[in-house]
Amino acid sequence: MSTKKVAVLGASGYTGSDAVRLLARHPSVEISALTANSHAGKPMSEVFPHFHSLDLPVLSEWEAVDWTKQDAVVCGLPHGTTQEIIAAVMNANPQIKVLDMSADFRLRDEAAYAHWYGHAHRALHLQDEAVYGLTEFYREKIAAARLVACPGCYPTAVLLALLPLVKAGLLDAHDLVIDAKSGVTGSGRGLKLASLFSEAGEGLSPYSIGTHRHSAEIEQEIGRVTGSAVTVNFTPHLIPMARGELCTCYVRLNGVTVDELRATLEQTYRDEPFVHVTKSGVVPRTQNVRGSNHVQIGVFPDRIKGRAIVIATLDNLVKGSAGQAIQNMNLMFGWPEATGLEQIALFP
Amino acid sequence: MSTKKVAVLGASGYTGSDAVRLLARHPSVEISALTANSHAGKPMSEVFPHFHSLDLPVLSEWEAVDWTKQDAVVCGLPHGTTQEIIAAVMNANPQIKVLDMSADFRLRDEAAYAHWYGHAHRALHLQDEAVYGLTEFYREKIAAARLVACPGCYPTAVLLALLPLVKAGLLDAHDLVIDAKSGVTGSGRGLKLASLFSEAGEGLSPYSIGTHRHSAEIEQEIGRVTGSAVTVNFTPHLIPMARGELCTCYVRLNGVTVDELRATLEQTYRDEPFVHVTKSGVVPRTQNVRGSNHVQIGVFPDRIKGRAIVIATLDNLVKGSAGQAIQNMNLMFGWPEATGLEQIALFP
Amino acid sequence: MSTKKVAVLGASGYTGSDAVRLLARHPSVEISALTANSHAGKPMSEVFPHFHSLDLPVLSEWEAVDWTKQDAVVCGLPHGTTQEIIAAVMNANPQIKVLDMSADFRLRDEAAYAHWYGHAHRALHLQDEAVYGLTEFYREKIAAARLVACPGCYPTAVLLALLPLVKAGLLDAHDLVIDAKSGVTGSGRGLKLASLFSEAGEGLSPYSIGTHRHSAEIEQEIGRVTGSAVTVNFTPHLIPMARGELCTCYVRLNGVTVDELRATLEQTYRDEPFVHVTKSGVVPRTQNVRGSNHVQIGVFPDRIKGRAIVIATLDNLVKGSAGQAIQNMNLMFGWPEATGLEQIALFP
Amino acid sequence: MSTKKVAVLGASGYTGSDAVRLLARHPSVEISALTANSHAGKPMSEVFPHFHSLDLPVLSEWEAVDWTKQDAVVCGLPHGTTQEIIAAVMNANPQIKVLDMSADFRLRDEAAYAHWYGHAHRALHLQDEAVYGLTEFYREKIAAARLVACPGCYPTAVLLALLPLVKAGLLDAHDLVIDAKSGVTGSGRGLKLASLFSEAGEGLSPYSIGTHRHSAEIEQEIGRVTGSAVTVNFTPHLIPMARGELCTCYVRLNGVTVDELRATLEQTYRDEPFVHVTKSGVVPRTQNVRGSNHVQIGVFPDRIKGRAIVIATLDNLVKGSAGQAIQNMNLMFGWPEATGLEQIALFP
Repeated sequence: MSTKKVAVLGASGYTGSDAVRLLARHPSVEISALTANSHAGKPMSEVFPHFHSLDLPVLSEWEAVDWTKQDAVVCGLPHGTTQEIIAAVMNANPQIKVLDMSADFRLRDEAAYAHWYGHAHRALHLQDEAVYGLTEFYREKIAAARLVACPGCYPTAVLLALLPLVKAGLLDAHDLVIDAKSGVTGSGRGLKLASLFSEAGEGLSPYSIGTHRHSAEIEQEIGRVTGSAVTVNFTPHLIPMARGELCTCYVRLNGVTVDELRATLEQTYRDEPFVHVTKSGVVPRTQNVRGSNHVQIGVFPDRIKGRAIVIATLDNLVKGSAGQAIQNMNLMFGWPEATGLEQIALFP
Repeated sequence: MSTKKVAVLGASGYTGSDAVRLLARHPSVEISALTANSHAGKPMSEVFPHFHSLDLPVLSEWEAVDWTKQDAVVCGLPHGTTQEIIAAVMNANPQIKVLDMSADFRLRDEAAYAHWYGHAHRALHLQDEAVYGLTEFYREKIAAARLVACPGCYPTAVLLALLPLVKAGLLDAHDLVIDAKSGVTGSGRGLKLASLFSEAGEGLSPYSIGTHRHSAEIEQEIGRVTGSAVTVNFTPHLIPMARGELCTCYVRLNGVTVDELRATLEQTYRDEPFVHVTKSGVVPRTQNVRGSNHVQIGVFPDRIKGRAIVIATLDNLVKGSAGQAIQNMNLMFGWPEATGLEQIALFP
Repeated sequence: MSTKKVAVLGASGYTGSDAVRLLARHPSVEISALTANSHAGKPMSEVFPHFHSLDLPVLSEWEAVDWTKQDAVVCGLPHGTTQEIIAAVMNANPQIKVLDMSADFRLRDEAAYAHWYGHAHRALHLQDEAVYGLTEFYREKIAAARLVACPGCYPTAVLLALLPLVKAGLLDAHDLVIDAKSGVTGSGRGLKLASLFSEAGEGLSPYSIGTHRHSAEIEQEIGRVTGSAVTVNFTPHLIPMARGELCTCYVRLNGVTVDELRATLEQTYRDEPFVHVTKSGVVPRTQNVRGSNHVQIGVFPDRIKGRAIVIATLDNLVKGSAGQAIQNMNLMFGWPEATGLEQIALFP
Repeated sequence: MSTKKVAVLGASGYTGSDAVRLLARHPSVEISALTANSHAGKPMSEVFPHFHSLDLPVLSEWEAVDWTKQDAVVCGLPHGTTQEIIAAVMNANPQIKVLDMSADFRLRDEAAYAHWYGHAHRALHLQDEAVYGLTEFYREKIAAARLVACPGCYPTAVLLALLPLVKAGLLDAHDLVIDAKSGVTGSGRGLKLASLFSEAGEGLSPYSIGTHRHSAEIEQEIGRVTGSAVTVNFTPHLIPMARGELCTCYVRLNGVTVDELRATLEQTYRDEPFVHVTKSGVVPRTQNVRGSNHVQIGVFPDRIKGRAIVIATLDNLVKGSAGQAIQNMNLMFGWPEATGLEQIALFP
């Protein structure tokens, strides 16, 4: 595999820095540029001291990068600011491969985007072109794409757990209750009161109840399978841990058993390197996937007849963000999909 | 109020020690005995060094206490061992008031007890006599009782949130999905691998999925209101915090609105000192009740039409255990119900 | 005791809110005003939701308070901004009793203040008048004062541990090495990167090595006892917990034994309600004092001959701040010193 | 590099499991056996679910392993039980290379061992043969050894920080005060009250003050350099985090400057892959090394004239244990020293 030059846009955030952590050990990647406009000129190790032992490019403004020299870019910018920058980058270099970790290109519907994000999309032609980067379900499209909109962390977990079951007609798609829990890195590195150690520690709180934007992605992808509009319950909770995410999905069965659910998932993910269905009785835990690109999915009987519980866990910064981006990048360059993603979960 | 002598059985566990914390400042209580058979002879401050500044009885074996001299006992023993000890204590002193924090006397049905706890009850006459100590719903019975079975921490939160709504016929009692989250003290002070800092920290895991014994209590009390057997979904999760518990209840509405739910709860708890219904949009958080006897309940619209989300939070060791026991004790002695329970939540 | 009106300046910070927590249960205090200029007009429970069950004054601008109607004020404003506001308040009401928790009036020397805080003091007459509020050592002066400069959290712990030993000539005052550890609330509620959960959690870091401003207070008070300038080593570390502080002091003995150190401390604090010297072998822990006004001090032999280790722990927001302020206020009003400070440590 | 068969003794502990995490990605290692007598017969992923995605040998009793077929063994057994098992293994296979992570072979002096560990050593001939595995200081001996006693986590940090300075005569070796802080994994996976989440969380406590066994190692190695017996102060503290360790060393200078200290350390570690001296003003933090084999050392001026502060941090399970063992194994097999140890710190 010949080495490709990969830039990271927004390297001063947590998804950006985790992309750097993974790319730095990718055997076919040269990290060619790191941007962070508010930190331009600083060494990366000043902004993220855990990179002290790596030799990385100095942070620069995104406008200062020669985009014609980059083969790919992983984008960790905040939503809203991403779309115009990506448009400019792709304009400067139409061949560049773009892995966007923001929310800007995930929704296909112009009106849905405007509804959930509060303004008209500013790069509609790219919204149209972008491929939704849920690797396990859109491999061929991703491999052929220029611009991949990597799914949100929650949607990745939920869709990996539920899409195969909805596809197979095993669930009532109109009675999906998803109780989601995430570590504090899910709120990013921005300075927010709720993200302070003294506020988020030793306690837990629900947030964005019934209004979280990731609902839109989940509904879009499930609706695409059912062929009609779907509304889900999605209720996230902030948990006193840095990384990790676990979604407990309460589902109504279409006359099937829990074992049939598990068999369908096992069959779907049989050959997948990163998606693992636990054996009966084995409980997914965020600790099992921390720092890795792996996902654990477990299926459990509900005490209420005709219902079941499907639980999925992943690391929000890896399979929920930077890891999935690199998995998609591997597809786009024709490399083995797991390249550079062999990290074993760090426990404890 | 004349002072009463109160003993604590099982003072070396977390519920027992939190009872001591609260009783030590109760203006009408003298802590007259503390038992912990495996620590007999030690000062309490050796077992719980945070009591270093208090003057407390030395720990003794429960058999060494002169029960005829005690006015009340708060029992923090493990389930299973409790029933025979309580029977012996009440036999020695039929006038003693018993606040049991274990699960031994919560289920009214002999068969249900045997089913969930794996053996026949060993003090059936007391199981029959015991009053379920959910203060806000059984005040009169509690005031007249000798033996009060204080509810489990999860059932307290869930029942305070849902009972008024089920009673008023606003919910479908057969479609209750309860996603529960608890801190690690919920597992007690016993030495378990899953309770180690390095195991429980920086991660979260579901447990006892579909099999947790607190389901039985919830179903018993909801079924008593509906008049027929009810099965609920109840799925607890272990959260990396010491204290606190939050239950997110997903409910199907019987043609009513979220505002009607909130109004019913507000009406129910209007005069309650410890149960608070949050205003529209205000989210309950465990941080708001830590160390206190307060409960917060919030009601939120679901994105799925005809459904709603009811969230309740409390401190599992206080309103979920020792605090509610003392609240009940106050009733039994005819004292103002909030006596000794004025602690304000400790935040941060 | 007749009730006094007490205002809190800067009620939106952690020291301010902990003052509110304590004052709200003080039997002789009416909380008469709460100020927070950036939150003026909001209910306190919006800024600190754990106060949801209390009836508190709405937050106002400090200029909007009628200071002539207040009997006392507890000030939790940041250093630098405090001095001018306190001067204005005392100008408006020369009888008001002021408990300042900021650093503005702790240093007696004009030049020292300018050196450590980078600007000339803006209320020199008050700097002169202020009494250093280390309760156990300045009781009479505090009782007679109008303005008390409550010590920093670290100096409180260090001075309670070392002052009696230096006074008695047992230690070499020129070889004091103090390794200090604090929870994240010590950094306040301001939005700082280092205070984020994802930054401060699961790790620890030294900070302000050899440059922390609390060194100045420690040196001032020790130097006052020795009668000559003293320089100490003081190295703080940020620990992943919200509350609590522990100072490990490494000292060189003037030919005495560890038992003599302990005996001197025991003698000094024999009748103190809040300062406790542990028995030989009993280790102070922050968990033992969390949420309370208590201090634990332990003395231990060093392996190096002629040296010893003195360890002190307290809750930085209570005895290290709001608790000590209220202890001083009690003295100033002639009330029993422990009034309103009976909180038992919250553990776990 | 031809592949070598490597077994792990004591794979159910944290040092053993971290050895597995690292060995599983070592390009020249086949993990050939995993032992854990109390879990024999279980898959490793049952004992450590974060290994769910790896194909590992089933756990067995150590007696069941054919030791003649192993090329090396990494031993994570508790001290005391290790010496006899290692002796048996080396008896069965005199060619096997042994990396012992326990304390059993670290002390060279028979009497010192008996003093600190409370019994006579049971494999004296091996105690004699063992090489102290502080890689950076004993490379040649390690490369030639059969049995390497990997240093304790604390001694590794302390010795890397201080040995070069003592060697160069820059410090007073008789005035070394070491304040050490460690995460809870340092106490192992055994079931101890002090290791529970609810006990160790949200607080910190010193332990083994003046009596910690790691003092012996530190004194042995510093004494070897000075040529005479040395006694150090060593005071460890338990910190509420899982991994990581930081030692703050307070030293008296022999008439040199802080810059000379830093220059000596920089010179010493110039070509080291894992030991990094921070630039002036840059503070070592455990977060910077978590999960990696890296060490950060910083030097800071003390406010007391003639003194300085040297701070070292590492991950106790990696460079403090399993990582250093594998680094030594690489030397023993003649492989590049950093092979399999390229993990970047996981932050956040």
